[in-house]
Amino acid sequence: MADTVTNPLAELYSERARRFGERGMSNPRDSAALISFFAGFPDPGSLPRNDVAEATRVALERDGEWALQYGASSGDPELVRELLAKLKRDQGIQAGAENVIITNGASQALALIVDMLVNPGDVVLSEAPTWMGAVRAFDAAGAETREIPVNEGGLDIDTLEQELNTLSETGRRAKFLYLIPNFQNPTGFTTTLERRKKIVQLAQTHNLPIIEDDAYFDLRYAGDTLPTLYTLDDSGLVMYMGTFSKIMAAGMRLGWTIANPAVIRQMTGLKSEGGTSPFASHVAAEFASSGTLTEHVHELRTLYHSRRDTMLKALEASMPAGTTWTTPEGGFFIWVTLPDGVSVRELAPASKDKGVEICPGFIFYFHGKGDNQIRLSYSFADEPNIQKGIKILGDLVKEQLTT
Amino acid sequence: MADTVTNPLAELYSERARRFGERGMSNPRDSAALISFFAGFPDPGSLPRNDVAEATRVALERDGEWALQYGASSGDPELVRELLAKLKRDQGIQAGAENVIITNGASQALALIVDMLVNPGDVVLSEAPTWMGAVRAFDAAGAETREIPVNEGGLDIDTLEQELNTLSETGRRAKFLYLIPNFQNPTGFTTTLERRKKIVQLAQTHNLPIIEDDAYFDLRYAGDTLPTLYTLDDSGLVMYMGTFSKIMAAGMRLGWTIANPAVIRQMTGLKSEGGTSPFASHVAAEFASSGTLTEHVHELRTLYHSRRDTMLKALEASMPAGTTWTTPEGGFFIWVTLPDGVSVRELAPASKDKGVEICPGFIFYFHGKGDNQIRLSYSFADEPNIQKGIKILGDLVKEQLTT
Repeated sequence: MADTVTNPLAELYSERARRFGERGMSNPRDSAALISFFAGFPDPGSLPRNDVAEATRVALERDGEWALQYGASSGDPELVRELLAKLKRDQGIQAGAENVIITNGASQALALIVDMLVNPGDVVLSEAPTWMGAVRAFDAAGAETREIPVNEGGLDIDTLEQELNTLSETGRRAKFLYLIPNFQNPTGFTTTLERRKKIVQLAQTHNLPIIEDDAYFDLRYAGDTLPTLYTLDDSGLVMYMGTFSKIMAAGMRLGWTIANPAVIRQMTGLKSEGGTSPFASHVAAEFASSGTLTEHVHELRTLYHSRRDTMLKALEASMPAGTTWTTPEGGFFIWVTLPDGVSVRELAPASKDKGVEICPGFIFYFHGKGDNQIRLSYSFADEPNIQKGIKILGDLVKEQLTT
Repeated sequence: MADTVTNPLAELYSERARRFGERGMSNPRDSAALISFFAGFPDPGSLPRNDVAEATRVALERDGEWALQYGASSGDPELVRELLAKLKRDQGIQAGAENVIITNGASQALALIVDMLVNPGDVVLSEAPTWMGAVRAFDAAGAETREIPVNEGGLDIDTLEQELNTLSETGRRAKFLYLIPNFQNPTGFTTTLERRKKIVQLAQTHNLPIIEDDAYFDLRYAGDTLPTLYTLDDSGLVMYMGTFSKIMAAGMRLGWTIANPAVIRQMTGLKSEGGTSPFASHVAAEFASSGTLTEHVHELRTLYHSRRDTMLKALEASMPAGTTWTTPEGGFFIWVTLPDGVSVRELAPASKDKGVEICPGFIFYFHGKGDNQIRLSYSFADEPNIQKGIKILGDLVKEQLTT
């Protein structure tokens, strides 16, 4: 069938379809020819192809019958067991299989939670700026999102408290608060322990569910590990989300959520495509149980730590006065605020013309801010390219300042 | 967090969550200790663990950088290419990459189509009995499903026509017709060519989208291959769904839909968890391009053909007069109608007590029929167990007849 055929189904689309809208093929390989600071893609060279091949061989030899069969709808028991062991060891989280759902990446985890809680028109609270996937998810759900700013110490508590009080006064309830306490995407800020405690306290007072997105927990290069909101709460309000995408392989599409058992059962009910790949799950479980995951995380920390430092130095060397940026303690991202008079709407296309891909700030907000901001990812490009790319970017910013 | 904590989120659940309901861990391994005729699980021994390990090794060596990276949202280009080649060769379908979406099993394909078209209260048309996954999906969407019976020649055309006319007269429109033209699940019936043509004609007259579910196309043991409704239609109304679950490995969770490009873009927009596993997709693409898939399908045809015959013979030998069953030309299922006075509500638990698992007929209907029917799958149990299990079942039916 040719692309020219009109679509006789369009007039029959559901309200959900109209809210979600169309999407094209969007292929990450399009970034490969550029110096790309665009996305949170893992370093291509670090992807453990030999170790994954070996884990596959072992997993299929030992348990191929079940790795290649239909699986449990809330997640493969092997992977659940390995995840629980990892969370206990690294995050200090005590949980059982009844607290876990394995999802197709963390993005599906968020989609399921939104499906679980949001009717069109409902109020949700979110850090802003925040991960563009969350912006898209809340908008597609028809949520009325109230933005809570993020600053040096993380989520702004005063605004949160004020927003919760305003809601109470007007007889409304927020369906959840979404935040990324560690090395926030896109700002790189980490929410302090004091604020974490206060957030949990406010959540308990207002019976406010919390989505704690901790995709980058394992990739800390400085400072001390802080307790998760999940461990600070004892009321079952926190849903703690993570992923194997950044520490094993994004292409396996393995994310997870830890939450109270009823929430897990409800998310499983909404997960209408059945269990997440038992094949990928068995491979990931073997990758974890063999100790390869721990080694790999160590290597990644060294790799990304060095890339972060290289990018910070390059910014220092190349950016004109009036440009500011954050110094993340972990994760993949630096958040840059451009000098007055420079707009990312001109900078981004000009930069792409010169072979450097950046992420415009406005896609991280719900209500049209961020024209003077950009997110730079230091995960995908290697260090020579980071230096080269930031130099090109600095020159373009200077150029825009003088015109 | 203990299971005893009450769930503070329950009062905040969305309408969608309330419609979908909770789901537990449901693990297919629970069936492994029984003689199971319950589910459409591939034969465990046939799952190609060595070939998948080898395909993984080759795929990661050649293209590991992309197999382990984030992928294109509508599907991995390698797998799309192999699927298109297979569909052209076997189904005679001419399509391009713009016509394809790769999904997490065929179940996600159906979920996305339902999301795309159905608002609560909408009318949909479906064969009945039909796949329990479809029953669940349409019910969860809040659809008003009108049942179209299936008989020897497939979907009952007269009822379809009548239903469409009734809808027209009352000023209503159906959002789609769902059918499984080949070796229908659960009945095993195949829709004749004449009826296929008539269905397409009716669809075009009424602008009725068609979901053509062809999960078992490759597993035909008798009779001639018939053209798909997708190839019989030239108006863009047919969405043609399939899966690698039955012919490669269910555990890879790789399904697909072929449809007009606008529908593909809309389904991609609704696929909020991002691209289906590039890892599994690369492995599957290598499995297909190496020729292993074709060989494997040949072996499976021989295996399941023989199991079908064994089960048919065992039914002949063990079932009392008054029991009838279908003779499928392919697929995994035989549909049994029990003699008067025998209820599956007693037979199923009694049978499980004796170690034999069967699928009660009522789960395949939308409006409470099927108490005197069962679906038997001959895919999972081996031939000695098929003979043993059917003998046990026959004895139980006889027992129930005399009490």
